[in-house]
Amino acid sequence: MVRIELSIDLHYDVDGYGADFIFNFQAARTASQHLLDERLGVFPAMPTASHTDALTQARFLRLAAPPGHLHLGYRASLELVHFLAAPELLAEVPVACLPPEVLPYLYPSRYCPSDRLGRLVMAEFGGLPRGYGRVMAIQEWVQRQVRFQGNSSNSNTWALDTLIDRVGVCRDFAHLMIALCRALSIPARFVTGIDYGADPALGPTDFHACVEVFLDQRWYLFDPSGTAIPMGFIRIGTGRDAADVSFATIFGNVTSQAPIISIRALEDQAAGWELPYRRSEALSTDSGSGFVVA
Amino acid sequence: MVRIELSIDLHYDVDGYGADFIFNFQAARTASQHLLDERLGVFPAMPTASHTDALTQARFLRLAAPPGHLHLGYRASLELVHFLAAPELLAEVPVACLPPEVLPYLYPSRYCPSDRLGRLVMAEFGGLPRGYGRVMAIQEWVQRQVRFQGNSSNSNTWALDTLIDRVGVCRDFAHLMIALCRALSIPARFVTGIDYGADPALGPTDFHACVEVFLDQRWYLFDPSGTAIPMGFIRIGTGRDAADVSFATIFGNVTSQAPIISIRALEDQAAGWELPYRRSEALSTDSGSGFVVA
Amino acid sequence: MVRIELSIDLHYDVDGYGADFIFNFQAARTASQHLLDERLGVFPAMPTASHTDALTQARFLRLAAPPGHLHLGYRASLELVHFLAAPELLAEVPVACLPPEVLPYLYPSRYCPSDRLGRLVMAEFGGLPRGYGRVMAIQEWVQRQVRFQGNSSNSNTWALDTLIDRVGVCRDFAHLMIALCRALSIPARFVTGIDYGADPALGPTDFHACVEVFLDQRWYLFDPSGTAIPMGFIRIGTGRDAADVSFATIFGNVTSQAPIISIRALEDQAAGWELPYRRSEALSTDSGSGFVVA
Amino acid sequence: MVRIELSIDLHYDVDGYGADFIFNFQAARTASQHLLDERLGVFPAMPTASHTDALTQARFLRLAAPPGHLHLGYRASLELVHFLAAPELLAEVPVACLPPEVLPYLYPSRYCPSDRLGRLVMAEFGGLPRGYGRVMAIQEWVQRQVRFQGNSSNSNTWALDTLIDRVGVCRDFAHLMIALCRALSIPARFVTGIDYGADPALGPTDFHACVEVFLDQRWYLFDPSGTAIPMGFIRIGTGRDAADVSFATIFGNVTSQAPIISIRALEDQAAGWELPYRRSEALSTDSGSGFVVA
Repeated sequence: MVRIELSIDLHYDVDGYGADFIFNFQAARTASQHLLDERLGVFPAMPTASHTDALTQARFLRLAAPPGHLHLGYRASLELVHFLAAPELLAEVPVACLPPEVLPYLYPSRYCPSDRLGRLVMAEFGGLPRGYGRVMAIQEWVQRQVRFQGNSSNSNTWALDTLIDRVGVCRDFAHLMIALCRALSIPARFVTGIDYGADPALGPTDFHACVEVFLDQRWYLFDPSGTAIPMGFIRIGTGRDAADVSFATIFGNVTSQAPIISIRALEDQAAGWELPYRRSEALSTDSGSGFVVA
Repeated sequence: MVRIELSIDLHYDVDGYGADFIFNFQAARTASQHLLDERLGVFPAMPTASHTDALTQARFLRLAAPPGHLHLGYRASLELVHFLAAPELLAEVPVACLPPEVLPYLYPSRYCPSDRLGRLVMAEFGGLPRGYGRVMAIQEWVQRQVRFQGNSSNSNTWALDTLIDRVGVCRDFAHLMIALCRALSIPARFVTGIDYGADPALGPTDFHACVEVFLDQRWYLFDPSGTAIPMGFIRIGTGRDAADVSFATIFGNVTSQAPIISIRALEDQAAGWELPYRRSEALSTDSGSGFVVA
Repeated sequence: MVRIELSIDLHYDVDGYGADFIFNFQAARTASQHLLDERLGVFPAMPTASHTDALTQARFLRLAAPPGHLHLGYRASLELVHFLAAPELLAEVPVACLPPEVLPYLYPSRYCPSDRLGRLVMAEFGGLPRGYGRVMAIQEWVQRQVRFQGNSSNSNTWALDTLIDRVGVCRDFAHLMIALCRALSIPARFVTGIDYGADPALGPTDFHACVEVFLDQRWYLFDPSGTAIPMGFIRIGTGRDAADVSFATIFGNVTSQAPIISIRALEDQAAGWELPYRRSEALSTDSGSGFVVA
Repeated sequence: MVRIELSIDLHYDVDGYGADFIFNFQAARTASQHLLDERLGVFPAMPTASHTDALTQARFLRLAAPPGHLHLGYRASLELVHFLAAPELLAEVPVACLPPEVLPYLYPSRYCPSDRLGRLVMAEFGGLPRGYGRVMAIQEWVQRQVRFQGNSSNSNTWALDTLIDRVGVCRDFAHLMIALCRALSIPARFVTGIDYGADPALGPTDFHACVEVFLDQRWYLFDPSGTAIPMGFIRIGTGRDAADVSFATIFGNVTSQAPIISIRALEDQAAGWELPYRRSEALSTDSGSGFVVA
């Protein structure tokens, strides 16, 4: 079990017209992610509306901010449990056997135009044995092709740009890996969280993007940019790609400061809390499909 | 009330490996679209699995076809009721007041990259009064920019291509209109159906694509390609764009014949059945949100 | 006649491997651009090779810089004479009557993919009377569509991006105007120079990009970004688009400082020197085709 | 020495407005390509204008065709001599030592956006020894990535599409190879000719596209699509990419028939005529730079 203390502070300056915000930065409540304690402060105080997506447990917070400074402070204490599996046992699921709610993750989306990549994936991965190993081969291929470099992409960058330009940030690695999986009819989706364990040389703690791939009737977590430790990953949003799960969608003229984020894992043998580490097992933190997790 | 008789026949030749199909061609059952009678034949007989999307009422049929010929025959008798509104009364809904399930239709999708169109929409439509009239202005702008021409686009064509190439089919008109609406923070989505009332010179009766825009807490129907009569439109699939609602997604090597479709409206004053015509009112056939329809 | 004093200083820091440079920043010597005096200093002193393009009179300077600081200082005194014409008399030249050396400026190039714009230009400009007026209509259309904003584009930006994103710098305005002209079979090309007369609010004096369009057997100058005064424009490079006439093409790892440029027009009635101003006549500074200029 | 008999027939139907044509289908006259005999018929008879590009020896024929049928018939007898070199001796030429007229072939062009490929080429070819071998590695890489398939691309397709879609015709193979070479600062250009020796299964004899790469102060011929025998290749046009050397650029509404082409090599030991075959030496048919050929 992993025990995490998380803190997020977001600061904005809203112009004289005010602005609407849709936030998605709170930790999801799922069968494998328990929120022991959670506090949210909005300054100045104002009405907010919240809803949770039934399928993904992503939590959205909306507010209409008046002109001036806006500050959201969030503190959460979490317990994470993981479902672990032997990679060699995980099979791809034939399309005919996919649960209906998984089908949308087969289709191309804004940043993951899998419809363009049919020939590429057949050439590169078509001959590999199906299963978790093939997905790992896709992840390794993405890592060989693309170099991580901060600020090397923008909000218009899609997987085809990353394929050509061979540079990107975590979100670009995720989009390319998702597009390749879908082109092979393997469902894949985009998960946002916090980059636990990232090399401080890459900058301060930030939001992070990972990939989930549906294998053997469960979503397994992959970190194609390789910058964080998946076992410490806290799920925030789950969607088809970055278009669905921006941590802040803003309607209005707003100056944003960089998010201030801290994440810390607690260790306590008696409590059964272990520090996250890179493990060799396949790791799932499936959200809310009612699966038993251990 | 509109009374429709619909018939669809799909023919495929599946190669020696067999093929998986996900179909979405059956009429949706909604509060405003009553299925009086419906028959589906699959030849040769084989197991199929069906599911209905809870949000959109789109109906999906899956099957694993053996090698050889595959034929699906579908016959349906429907009654359509429409919610009508005075266009001048329909307001845009502020983002803060949108129902949560509508938010995904604000975001960019595979064929509708609204994130690229912010400056364009502000220049072209930013100064117009908000409401149904502005959406009509968008539709008319699309119709002035784009020329309808069969076979002028393909499954990779997105709204940016249509904006540049200025040619397309119904799906391209729909994608461009959707992208423009979303860039103005107006929720818009893609609906598939049958092109009732289309000019026979454009070819045999075919599947059709329309747009729904969310105004005054309800989805209103628009036909940006202008090729069909909206009042006779039968809803099949509802999604973010064409990626979500292909009438047939095929996994395998298959030769497809052109769909054979017929649609006919019945007229009977005693029964209250009127033939579809182009009307000046705003027209809604909102699917399943429990709204009262008349 | 216009009398200009020009000064350009370029500073680079070359890494330990050294770097090759191809420069193109010296004023072209043409029948309408007389170099009264010119000095070039390269520090540290090193061998350089120069050549002049026979067709465009663009002057290229090559050198292999050692590691360390590189400074090029350039001073020039010039006299500009202009060929002036009444816009209403300038006709488009039928393709069959174009001089052979003009034909390459009809074809699409890296940043001006005119092959994509056939329908757009027919819809927007196909019905206009041919001639200088139609070219002015294209320039005005570009100015209405695109907003000038510093640093809004990069070296990958082509005319299709500018058409969609509706923002750019002088080079982007030029590329879009060129692409539109070529799509109408009107030869158009890219000219680099210095932005004489630009609003200081746009930043320090900089290199500038204009357009030349071939009408009535001569190239006429247009300034689609509208930021400079064409009569004070000094021709440096002439090409199909920015790919041909970068002021510095660098092979190696080099840190570049912003160019330091000053340009000044001298006024002297006795000498016949007048200050540049925005004029209503069509203006040509055709390079080296042996035309008489006045 | 190779002795070729060539015949080309082009047929068009011109609509009631007439049409302008710029043709470029005649064999170039170069130091290594001797035209022993040549006949050109234009039916109906009409005035034509010809010019030859001084740099590339490409021959252009212009005419203004009246409404009705247009037929051009061309017959040529040629002798080809080749400059042969040992591949292992051919070095890349440092940018500082490139002849000025070669520099334009370093820059990106319409279909060869080498500016996007810097990271890709460094990753794939940056570590290879420089010279002919590295260019062969690029050609082999292109052949591994891309599959030849008729009608799989169109006149908008550029090298980035080919990189993603992994399918194309000879022109697409050429564009991708050129873009990759230029991204490594190796000059490369596009040559059109006739596909001598192509597998009849690929269709009737057609125009063909090859690549020339500048090594050791000479242009060497490469056939990246691998469909023809380079030793039998007849040079027609030479340019930056397909935009420069279309065999027919048409201004007007014209229905084109497929070109009818035949090419035949004569064998005669006494005359020193040998049939073309695939050879292991590097092969150059450099056009008109005055080099001695053997």
